[in-house]
Amino acid sequence: MRVVELIQKKRNGQILEPDELKHLVQAYTDGSMPDYQMSAFLMAVFFQGMTSDELAVWADAMLRSGEVLDLSSISGYKVDKHSTGGVGDKVSLILAPLAVAAGVKVPMISGRGLGHTGGTLDKLESIPGFNVNLTVDQFKAQVDEAGCGLIGQTGEIAPADKKLYALRDVTATVECIPLIASSIMSKKLAEGIDGLVLDVKVGSGAFMKNIDDARELAKTMVGIGASMNKPVRALLTDMNQPLGLAVGNALEVIESIETLKGNGPDDLTDLTVELVAEMLELAGEDSSRDRLYGLLENGEALAVFRDIITRQGGNGDVCDDYSLLPTAANAITFSAFDEGYISRMNTAEIGIAAAELGAGRQTKEDEIDHAVGFFFVKKLGDAVDAGETVLEIHYNDDTNLENCLRRLRDAIEISPTATEHNPLILERLT
Amino acid sequence: MRVVELIQKKRNGQILEPDELKHLVQAYTDGSMPDYQMSAFLMAVFFQGMTSDELAVWADAMLRSGEVLDLSSISGYKVDKHSTGGVGDKVSLILAPLAVAAGVKVPMISGRGLGHTGGTLDKLESIPGFNVNLTVDQFKAQVDEAGCGLIGQTGEIAPADKKLYALRDVTATVECIPLIASSIMSKKLAEGIDGLVLDVKVGSGAFMKNIDDARELAKTMVGIGASMNKPVRALLTDMNQPLGLAVGNALEVIESIETLKGNGPDDLTDLTVELVAEMLELAGEDSSRDRLYGLLENGEALAVFRDIITRQGGNGDVCDDYSLLPTAANAITFSAFDEGYISRMNTAEIGIAAAELGAGRQTKEDEIDHAVGFFFVKKLGDAVDAGETVLEIHYNDDTNLENCLRRLRDAIEISPTATEHNPLILERLT
Repeated sequence: MRVVELIQKKRNGQILEPDELKHLVQAYTDGSMPDYQMSAFLMAVFFQGMTSDELAVWADAMLRSGEVLDLSSISGYKVDKHSTGGVGDKVSLILAPLAVAAGVKVPMISGRGLGHTGGTLDKLESIPGFNVNLTVDQFKAQVDEAGCGLIGQTGEIAPADKKLYALRDVTATVECIPLIASSIMSKKLAEGIDGLVLDVKVGSGAFMKNIDDARELAKTMVGIGASMNKPVRALLTDMNQPLGLAVGNALEVIESIETLKGNGPDDLTDLTVELVAEMLELAGEDSSRDRLYGLLENGEALAVFRDIITRQGGNGDVCDDYSLLPTAANAITFSAFDEGYISRMNTAEIGIAAAELGAGRQTKEDEIDHAVGFFFVKKLGDAVDAGETVLEIHYNDDTNLENCLRRLRDAIEISPTATEHNPLILERLT
Repeated sequence: MRVVELIQKKRNGQILEPDELKHLVQAYTDGSMPDYQMSAFLMAVFFQGMTSDELAVWADAMLRSGEVLDLSSISGYKVDKHSTGGVGDKVSLILAPLAVAAGVKVPMISGRGLGHTGGTLDKLESIPGFNVNLTVDQFKAQVDEAGCGLIGQTGEIAPADKKLYALRDVTATVECIPLIASSIMSKKLAEGIDGLVLDVKVGSGAFMKNIDDARELAKTMVGIGASMNKPVRALLTDMNQPLGLAVGNALEVIESIETLKGNGPDDLTDLTVELVAEMLELAGEDSSRDRLYGLLENGEALAVFRDIITRQGGNGDVCDDYSLLPTAANAITFSAFDEGYISRMNTAEIGIAAAELGAGRQTKEDEIDHAVGFFFVKKLGDAVDAGETVLEIHYNDDTNLENCLRRLRDAIEISPTATEHNPLILERLT
């Protein structure tokens, strides 16, 4: 099979045979197909797309490029959630323990933050001692015993995706729905889960800026799941402002614990409950919202989180004593420059403003400062007076503070009249 | 300047700035831009094209990626001809001496055959001793003294094109008019010529299968020439059958010498005369066809060819004694399987059939057998009886003779009624 002919076939808009797609993934993973051929193929896919049949084979080949976890020895329904990424999105930290408390198993493999988005692993590593690098056997044992393990991607899972993602990042082939969808689904379905819930973000802080693209991405991922006989549901949710009030790793851990105590902000609490309800429906379990809010109120979900922290080497006492978490040396307020209503947030810019302080990474090599970040006092639609605090800025190093402030000034708009804003949950796809 | 952003810009259909295009060519030539980024860029160009302004900068940057010959010290009008490639196209061997005899200088840098097409260098190397590897200084001296040098591409001329062409060949980005046009024009204009005539082939033996594509390619090349203030003319010519009667290196040398003696087949003679006339018009010289046919009849053009051969180390006696050229050990005839008219030739297949015998290369590493090839007795539109000879096959090694015969059988169609065929010269662009 000549790779150049397969590139040409895709370039010309013809449909590739299953064997041909498998060959490309295998040859690229084992190194016999060089980067320069794959990047040409990926650019051809950017323009010509993939049919749902092609994509099913492609995602399956990516999934099978490495180890596929076998969790069949673990009783119960194994279900995970994936978010396409946003700012202040700490849902996983609350959702995983809540779902376990509600009766399902959550084998969760998460990523790190890059660019404007945060990452679950970085948030968890704010907790002193927390180890996200379990072996596969340790991970399986913990899912079995505690209902949940929270770990990072291993080199064995979907190595084709790891290699493809690095290549897409430097060849302008990231923004391509079939490639995004297959990347996510190959990693998630290699976890050996029974079902998956997707949180597809839409808006100024999301990769998908409009609902049409988000819907297409969601449908594409649900389709890939269906092709592998894995039930997948998706919520399209608003990311035109940070989720909750905290942005930054330790600050988001505190907000997550507060939410697990029933004291979380409404948007964060409600979205988490809705996503867990979807997980429970996939499992055929009782998904009543009252029951789920109850598990937050009565401390059962928090108890699961404390157990997970302790099992993964972390100090469970953080649940009671936030001073055990890293704390920034300095805090200043960012105030409204005008009277009016918060009318728009360029949420990606807010994420990058936080990264300027060290809350996130511009390149994969950057170090994270877990202590720093923002705490919002006002959100979209709130009235403010000139000089009134919009958010608190927690920082250690002031090297990039001016850049951070400039970005915030540009990112947050105040208008004289109240404006309408999107509901949090825009659509639901099954 | 981040290369990934330039790829993205082209991908999104935006127009790149001159600095950006120059940066890509320079960074790719010096190795700081890896192959995998250039192949993604080239595939984006395949889909988004280049404006004529972009292409002018791109071709100029390719031209300047290496040495640009300075022939200003040589008196006279320096003009070359380039063919986009076909089967039996030995025009350069006749055109160069005829043009010199008619009063212009011809600094000609040619290529080798690949796939179904032949190459001028391979044909010249049929002549015992002929050296196509002159130094630049030797080449310039010969153009000055003898009016013409016939050499191969050097590593110093347009190295960006050499690298880009190798990459395009393995990434399915060959068939792209702006990339084809800039490849040809950057090499040709690096010769330091005053003007250029293009022979753009159209048909079953050409890279451009239809007249629209050929016209677009021709216009694109003429436009690049105009952007560099170099007058360029193009003829679109028919390549639905081999040009002349001979296909194969030594056989084509014999046919070229016969044409230089005024005994050539009409199509080959007429096309050569028309192309030389275009060269003379660019130079402002007398382009009367009678004069040019006369220079063939009176032996002046042949005398120039003999001089070039001798100066480049070859045996000029081949002009009188064809037995000095390599001769195949065996000859068989290929006969018509039916009575009727030769109605169609898959000319690329005929070229590949000749390559099966060793007349051409499937890969750059293949060795050429200069002696082998075809001599056509019948051409398009000719009446044949069943069993009558259509062509002679000259071969040494019969390993692939069966493949050759099978390809010829499939490539040559005979129909019961006479059919119309294209004129040789289809269009003329200035």
